[in-house]
Amino acid sequence: MAHLSIIGTGNMGQAISSVVTKGGNTVELLGQTDTDKPVTGDIVVLAVPYPAIDQVLAERGEQLKGKIVVDITNPLNFETFDSLTVPADSSAAAEIAAKLPGSRVLKAFNTTFAGTLAAGTVGALTTTVLVAGDDADAKATLIGVISAAGLKAIDAGALKRAREMEALGFLQISLAAKETVSWTGGFGVVA
Amino acid sequence: MAHLSIIGTGNMGQAISSVVTKGGNTVELLGQTDTDKPVTGDIVVLAVPYPAIDQVLAERGEQLKGKIVVDITNPLNFETFDSLTVPADSSAAAEIAAKLPGSRVLKAFNTTFAGTLAAGTVGALTTTVLVAGDDADAKATLIGVISAAGLKAIDAGALKRAREMEALGFLQISLAAKETVSWTGGFGVVA
Repeated sequence: MAHLSIIGTGNMGQAISSVVTKGGNTVELLGQTDTDKPVTGDIVVLAVPYPAIDQVLAERGEQLKGKIVVDITNPLNFETFDSLTVPADSSAAAEIAAKLPGSRVLKAFNTTFAGTLAAGTVGALTTTVLVAGDDADAKATLIGVISAAGLKAIDAGALKRAREMEALGFLQISLAAKETVSWTGGFGVVA
Repeated sequence: MAHLSIIGTGNMGQAISSVVTKGGNTVELLGQTDTDKPVTGDIVVLAVPYPAIDQVLAERGEQLKGKIVVDITNPLNFETFDSLTVPADSSAAAEIAAKLPGSRVLKAFNTTFAGTLAAGTVGALTTTVLVAGDDADAKATLIGVISAAGLKAIDAGALKRAREMEALGFLQISLAAKETVSWTGGFGVVA
């Protein structure tokens, strides 16, 4: 059984928490200001907006050593909805991984809206979580947690693929913001 | 009724041709070497691999003036399957548009495998073609051609969004190359 810590109690933190417990695994959901509570999970999900990541890393960097750290962010410019705020040849995940050399960083959950995680479905499809990372064991562990909840999870490749996953997340959010797709829809994966 | 020219007789050219005629529109399918035949369509689909685009533009650039030109390419490094060959802050579509100032360039069809275009479905979903471009009328025209065939087509935004569409196309091809998804599957869109 896996024990996860989720930092961030917003829609995404709550939705991921529900996935974890649905699969019979355990979770602690920590607010961004719960800095007095050390993380106890072997997997730590950073479910805060991208601009808040640096503060979390400053406060908890030491605690994250040796752990699987999951980046779920979509680093959009939310004023223009027209670009990402990370360099074009990088990704939020790459920047986080560079700041956490002692952690195994994964990118996941950024291409699935909270509603589709909580429901387990996106339209007629089972919700599929893309997981990218450079550590095969870490990926397999997270994929196991997600699969236990009845969702699908697939290995999207090395952490380098986070760049494409963030592009996908950006495109999906831009479509939802224009109401071209709903916040309970978006991209689904057909195997 | 719209009349299209498709340059390139591979899987994608054939699949797009079948979509066009299914919707009651007309199409001419030109081989890359049919340089003696001028394009007659008001919409011209460049259905050749990205490395062949420059030659097509050199041969037909003048003929493409005033026309809607559709870029369907995924400019992957097909040796490594690990990167795109266009600059990170650009896209194949942006490069093509820069070379065709007298044309209205759209990005479309690069996120739908040939099999899902021909079938009209991706798993349980109707195949959805993403269309990006800076000219609203051009987008509406192409969306009409696709919709007439019973497929869905959605406005994915400005031509700038081609960058994210090419990332999506890249990710999808990398998943299919690893057999994580099949060439008749991939990403579907749930409205």
